[in-house]
Amino acid sequence: MKKSVGPRTLAFPVPVWVVGSYDAHGKPNMMTASWAGICCSKPPCLNVSLRKATYSYGALMERRAFTVSIPSVDQAAPADYAGKASGRDVDKFAATGLTATRSKVVDAPYVEEFPVVLECRILHDLEIGLHTLFVGEIMDVKADEEVLGDKGLPRIDAARPFVYAPESRSYFSLGERLGPAFKMGDTYR
Amino acid sequence: MKKSVGPRTLAFPVPVWVVGSYDAHGKPNMMTASWAGICCSKPPCLNVSLRKATYSYGALMERRAFTVSIPSVDQAAPADYAGKASGRDVDKFAATGLTATRSKVVDAPYVEEFPVVLECRILHDLEIGLHTLFVGEIMDVKADEEVLGDKGLPRIDAARPFVYAPESRSYFSLGERLGPAFKMGDTYR
Repeated sequence: MKKSVGPRTLAFPVPVWVVGSYDAHGKPNMMTASWAGICCSKPPCLNVSLRKATYSYGALMERRAFTVSIPSVDQAAPADYAGKASGRDVDKFAATGLTATRSKVVDAPYVEEFPVVLECRILHDLEIGLHTLFVGEIMDVKADEEVLGDKGLPRIDAARPFVYAPESRSYFSLGERLGPAFKMGDTYR
Repeated sequence: MKKSVGPRTLAFPVPVWVVGSYDAHGKPNMMTASWAGICCSKPPCLNVSLRKATYSYGALMERRAFTVSIPSVDQAAPADYAGKASGRDVDKFAATGLTATRSKVVDAPYVEEFPVVLECRILHDLEIGLHTLFVGEIMDVKADEEVLGDKGLPRIDAARPFVYAPESRSYFSLGERLGPAFKMGDTYR
């Protein structure tokens, strides 16, 4: 018997991704988003949702491009800061000492020090309510050599991303590998 | 210096959520999705992406409703099965022994045994490419009493959801709490 807790955004786990953009003057900005995910395999796309009030919202609308830089557990503090301060008031790159690298693929900067980055051009923006959902086509993925595995792809256990838990407003690391997808369920017929 | 790995859906972590629906004949179905997330705070909304070829796609289009049931690490095997088999061919509830409970809030069933469920009515469907993104307004969240914390909300460390790692097609559990969101970054000004 389940207990109702009301209509709330209480689903987990959700990612901690940092959205990079240039404002109208070319100033780089970064903003942490957890209302985000992958949303299409072909073309490869991800989605991030931003409130209209954010400084990044205007930048994405203007440039039609953004990046997602995925922080490691060791980078939780600057990632958290980037979700709290506004690029309207401060230069978050200067404040954290992180480096804004200009993408050669899209009109947006990414966070050089974060191990994995995705460069996106905006295919759709969908106003839902407080948040607007942006669908970005992934034009390239880039990763630090140290996190690449045998197949040349970034390994989750090397990049060590983390998740946001909305109910407790806290961050959690990842743990053990449970098993292979599309195989663990083979016991059922 | 980052290395390019090409345009791929290589972002992590992404969730493992099980989408519940009724087909045209009222048969309950469940399907695991990792192209999913939260996408709006007001109204509270989440998004899941389904391929048109899936049996669930037709059900969502017809019923304009679905649920998301969040499996625990102990339920990875049936959740994995639900992402592989098709409701067109089999009754996945019968095959796994899981229970389809009819939602009283939306026209869809949820997985009784999974600790947290969200009941959604569809606000938008956006065809992106291979996948169609569905935005569901969260009409209610329900959870087992055992996973509720002091504030009456489901605790992530009690529900023990897990994540999907696209690069290695594997599942990972969650680990330690890293710290409080909107606070860890207070060292920066």
